[in-house]
Amino acid sequence: MAGNSFGTLFRFTTWGESHGPAIGVVVDGCPSLLDLTEADIQPWMEKRRPGQSRYTTQRQEPDQVKILSGVFEGRTTGTPISLLIENTDQRSKDYSDIAAKFRPGHADYTYWQKYGIRDYRGGGRSSARETACRVAAGAVARKVLGSAIQVRGALVQIGPHRIDRSRWDWAEIDNNPFFCPDPVAATQWADYLDGIRKSGSSVGAVVELVASGVPVGLGDPLYDKLDSDLACAMMTINAVKGVEIGNGFAAAELTGEENADQMRMGPDGLPQFLSNQSGGILGGISTGQDIVVRFAVKPTSSILTPRQTVDTAGNDTDILTKGRHDPCVGIRAVPVGEAMMACVLADHLLRRRVERRE
Amino acid sequence: MAGNSFGTLFRFTTWGESHGPAIGVVVDGCPSLLDLTEADIQPWMEKRRPGQSRYTTQRQEPDQVKILSGVFEGRTTGTPISLLIENTDQRSKDYSDIAAKFRPGHADYTYWQKYGIRDYRGGGRSSARETACRVAAGAVARKVLGSAIQVRGALVQIGPHRIDRSRWDWAEIDNNPFFCPDPVAATQWADYLDGIRKSGSSVGAVVELVASGVPVGLGDPLYDKLDSDLACAMMTINAVKGVEIGNGFAAAELTGEENADQMRMGPDGLPQFLSNQSGGILGGISTGQDIVVRFAVKPTSSILTPRQTVDTAGNDTDILTKGRHDPCVGIRAVPVGEAMMACVLADHLLRRRVERRE
Amino acid sequence: MAGNSFGTLFRFTTWGESHGPAIGVVVDGCPSLLDLTEADIQPWMEKRRPGQSRYTTQRQEPDQVKILSGVFEGRTTGTPISLLIENTDQRSKDYSDIAAKFRPGHADYTYWQKYGIRDYRGGGRSSARETACRVAAGAVARKVLGSAIQVRGALVQIGPHRIDRSRWDWAEIDNNPFFCPDPVAATQWADYLDGIRKSGSSVGAVVELVASGVPVGLGDPLYDKLDSDLACAMMTINAVKGVEIGNGFAAAELTGEENADQMRMGPDGLPQFLSNQSGGILGGISTGQDIVVRFAVKPTSSILTPRQTVDTAGNDTDILTKGRHDPCVGIRAVPVGEAMMACVLADHLLRRRVERRE
Amino acid sequence: MAGNSFGTLFRFTTWGESHGPAIGVVVDGCPSLLDLTEADIQPWMEKRRPGQSRYTTQRQEPDQVKILSGVFEGRTTGTPISLLIENTDQRSKDYSDIAAKFRPGHADYTYWQKYGIRDYRGGGRSSARETACRVAAGAVARKVLGSAIQVRGALVQIGPHRIDRSRWDWAEIDNNPFFCPDPVAATQWADYLDGIRKSGSSVGAVVELVASGVPVGLGDPLYDKLDSDLACAMMTINAVKGVEIGNGFAAAELTGEENADQMRMGPDGLPQFLSNQSGGILGGISTGQDIVVRFAVKPTSSILTPRQTVDTAGNDTDILTKGRHDPCVGIRAVPVGEAMMACVLADHLLRRRVERRE
Repeated sequence: MAGNSFGTLFRFTTWGESHGPAIGVVVDGCPSLLDLTEADIQPWMEKRRPGQSRYTTQRQEPDQVKILSGVFEGRTTGTPISLLIENTDQRSKDYSDIAAKFRPGHADYTYWQKYGIRDYRGGGRSSARETACRVAAGAVARKVLGSAIQVRGALVQIGPHRIDRSRWDWAEIDNNPFFCPDPVAATQWADYLDGIRKSGSSVGAVVELVASGVPVGLGDPLYDKLDSDLACAMMTINAVKGVEIGNGFAAAELTGEENADQMRMGPDGLPQFLSNQSGGILGGISTGQDIVVRFAVKPTSSILTPRQTVDTAGNDTDILTKGRHDPCVGIRAVPVGEAMMACVLADHLLRRRVERRE
Repeated sequence: MAGNSFGTLFRFTTWGESHGPAIGVVVDGCPSLLDLTEADIQPWMEKRRPGQSRYTTQRQEPDQVKILSGVFEGRTTGTPISLLIENTDQRSKDYSDIAAKFRPGHADYTYWQKYGIRDYRGGGRSSARETACRVAAGAVARKVLGSAIQVRGALVQIGPHRIDRSRWDWAEIDNNPFFCPDPVAATQWADYLDGIRKSGSSVGAVVELVASGVPVGLGDPLYDKLDSDLACAMMTINAVKGVEIGNGFAAAELTGEENADQMRMGPDGLPQFLSNQSGGILGGISTGQDIVVRFAVKPTSSILTPRQTVDTAGNDTDILTKGRHDPCVGIRAVPVGEAMMACVLADHLLRRRVERRE
Repeated sequence: MAGNSFGTLFRFTTWGESHGPAIGVVVDGCPSLLDLTEADIQPWMEKRRPGQSRYTTQRQEPDQVKILSGVFEGRTTGTPISLLIENTDQRSKDYSDIAAKFRPGHADYTYWQKYGIRDYRGGGRSSARETACRVAAGAVARKVLGSAIQVRGALVQIGPHRIDRSRWDWAEIDNNPFFCPDPVAATQWADYLDGIRKSGSSVGAVVELVASGVPVGLGDPLYDKLDSDLACAMMTINAVKGVEIGNGFAAAELTGEENADQMRMGPDGLPQFLSNQSGGILGGISTGQDIVVRFAVKPTSSILTPRQTVDTAGNDTDILTKGRHDPCVGIRAVPVGEAMMACVLADHLLRRRVERRE
Repeated sequence: MAGNSFGTLFRFTTWGESHGPAIGVVVDGCPSLLDLTEADIQPWMEKRRPGQSRYTTQRQEPDQVKILSGVFEGRTTGTPISLLIENTDQRSKDYSDIAAKFRPGHADYTYWQKYGIRDYRGGGRSSARETACRVAAGAVARKVLGSAIQVRGALVQIGPHRIDRSRWDWAEIDNNPFFCPDPVAATQWADYLDGIRKSGSSVGAVVELVASGVPVGLGDPLYDKLDSDLACAMMTINAVKGVEIGNGFAAAELTGEENADQMRMGPDGLPQFLSNQSGGILGGISTGQDIVVRFAVKPTSSILTPRQTVDTAGNDTDILTKGRHDPCVGIRAVPVGEAMMACVLADHLLRRRVERRE
């Protein structure tokens, strides 16, 4: 059934296959009177765009976003914003190899079983190409958030290699092709990932997202909690297998004393927390602190080593997935995660407007 | 705004506060003609019910479920099923201590900031008592799943102590007060948790859920994926801070070769996977293998050690939360997690009916 | 599938059958900090309550509403408000006659065909008794609307007899058992309906609802328009067969010149309309004028004259529906229509808060 | 907030303004394996397309639909179907007259008040041009319905002139520019409407829709009834002011005896109704008979006679709306109504799949 929309008040619907004429997203529920042009969206597209370093797929897509509706004289009108991205690099190639074989780790088998048909060209709907639409929607969401709320992401682990958190510097994010906040780790990762890439292999990663400037009170308990919506959002991203908030899984090892965020009145006369074990969310509602989310991305399933599989006719066979692939899809998951987080926050920022008697 | 419903086709809405006259849940969308009586629900309530060992809160609630609608002559009618649970153990106590102070780690501060009012008695709406409603809904969901689909949960980590997976035995689950599948670990945990309990402290835990017998094809990409819905479901449970599917965060450290589930035709003439790294979900759709979900529960926030906080008047103060609390809320999260998983699966089992031309 | 909820931000879910232990409604999304007690709800229940005149069913139900959640110290908390109404007048009677026969004009046949089972006692879920829950929800909705917005209803036609609009006097509504604003018509209707009642027959009616004080800007084009939501709301009420806004069907006969509401600046410096042909809605959005809705109610299907029908075994048979029935269900549809209108307006009043950049 | 989607399982979202680069619709939830090409959609577009007779606007739009996604090798894949229609006849004209003045009967004033901004070119989002998207979605819906279910519409009244029902002949629908089933009336209407057109005036109309072949059991009580969804659907169409099912408002004048549809076992051994007063719906659920819906369309608001209005600066002024307009928008509402009815039925046909234990 219908499953291509995300959000409640700030709601987007994506459409399109990897090798169709175009992909796109309709953003509905964006408030009116926000400044919005294509130039506001394009920089975020660039961040996700493939082919910018040797560590991402060499598919070349300009990913130029066209605004088809919902904006008049540079401002949103409150009507749906339709954004379209043409697929320009649809190589005419021979798909006969993957047309009838199920690539391990991909959605080939499950789509085929579920729908009885699948667009096998480049992964069709399940391609990571769809995430371009999320980034476009995220750019609109950032307009809703305004300048006071900042959503940033970083790669904090690639394969077994983690950053040193004491070296975290947001300014480093743009100085390496990994969105890595630790310049020393970034250098090490370059060597490591070169090896992975040259061997035709791939590796997983962990992304960390931080939203700052988020006001207290976002999140609707009990089933539209801010953290449950964030967990859902991250898990909708291709290849994501885990998500955690604040201390996350590490909280399992802590005692109540260690995990509690104590409070004191601040110098500004407002309550403040003395720590942020919770990742900025208590009872599903934002505390006013930084929101901290991490998610794990599995290694790219497309690798050059032949793997055992079956075909649609029921024969055993082998497959090796040639073509232009990311050795670590986790890298490009950073802007996608940011975009999804921005959308969740925009949705809840609007939802918060209705919580009390006016 | 409205945030107290879960699910799309199989949809439940919970209501009620910890110390009000009753709590309850309305299950809407349950197909007709399913056998259902209160006796089908009650055993699952017993599993979650507090006061059954010294490791859970000593609050005594019979948690007797009454079916008020939607069932006629022992069968569901397709109309909403209203389930009511009375609150019988509402001790008349002095709440003045917590009425004006924010308990660290609790939702007190965020509810107060969001709504400008909160029912402070026993946590009000944010109390774990609400999870009784989830378990009741889950019992109905199991009826939808039928006997071929089995949903089971286990505690696999408590504080820093993990089970030995080589000793995993589902039959052990009911032989210890922890839902622990490893009898050796269960013995060790008893000592460990006694220490935690006696010191008035608390500790976190990790729960693992396994659904077997799930057919291929459940899950609606891209934003109602089976895994994103499961992640959302788990993160709605009180105190949950992380969730993962299959290899989860460990997948970040693997290569594509290690993480791929290869396939071969089975002796039954059907495709089969040679491993289950994916946790039974590819591209958001069930593969037909076991669905494996893990989630992390933070330590109970109510502890006997005084913590720094502030009050509603803006004064610094200290608080220590007396009363009947679980030293490890992760234990009772097992039946709650099972119930939520059953509800997600029931929803997607119904959703799957509409995916193809009939 | 799930179909027992109404509204988006102000959302209610009803449950319960005519002859079960109770019926009820859960109102979710009500803002916090509104004053609310059972005494605020009860007067509206009284207005709908049966057995108050000889023109409505003689079933005697106190329809006492209990608030089970969502209110603390007399104010709403932002959590779901659960309202319960016990069924006290469930006569132990012999249902064998209607258990297997389909009453013409009732939902017996369609429920049986759809669900394969039906609670035949008193109509089960399809009984007009369910509308008590709507009235309770409507009482909460009125709290959201506040005192500046007034929702009133009147019976303007009963059978072929219409009121004289020149005699419209809202003060007369409570002076007759018909909610009739025309005292002359009310007298005539009494005689007419006595005849209908004594002959065991029934008759249809038309209800008109007027909401005044509604601000401009309510309604979300294109598919959640204020008028489409109102039309949906009215058509969900038992026995309603038509709904119109403003001029309604009469607009088909008018020219553009006749139907246009011209504008002029008012003495208060604000734009004002010179007429209200539109019924207060243009393009799906409220204009700031009175919202005017009318709906047609078919004659009560339960009549004493034997009618031809079939039974569940596939035999031709006859049926006559004895028991306590309304000779004109349109009368009690007045408070139900008011309640539904209040709920739609409350929903859109909340929705309006998110339409623009703040 | 978001209000541009319609339907639950079969769900579409429209976007686009009258004078933007394009309009479009995303259909989500369409089952896989249905045959679908642009050639299946185009004939329905032709039926609604303006400029085909002197009784509709002379705007010339080819309304060529492009399928951008969701179809592979001529069959639906279960993924969202994106349909795009370019706006080709966007005359470069001077909009200064309507940019600052509110056209009576249009949504100009309400959009401006609600959103604080409006795309005044050709009505922007509130233009009837948007209904082209509905017709495209309806063409997909018809594929879901299959050949056994037929949805047809007819114009049964134009201004004060009604058809003679004894002359109803569906074959006549395509023989006149009014979709009129009565050839005699069609001739009279031509003269009448020529007069209206030449005087620069406009007139209202009534459309009747009939769906045949609809199985029993469609519709989800109590708040997603088949009739409430149909009423909502029709009322979302521009200029619609009333909707009725079966006898509709006429039912108000009938007695229970007159309005009841009696039943007898048919020669095929199945229950059959002896009449269809109900319009094929009882208790919100289809009976298996023809579904009969009527809706009233107000006269086109754009007329050549100057009307009094105000401007955005708060001055009294007059306006006359030149340009290419329909003297009776009710005519082109016929294919739009059909499309909406097809969408509602497709949605409920899918919803029906989940109503019972399988």
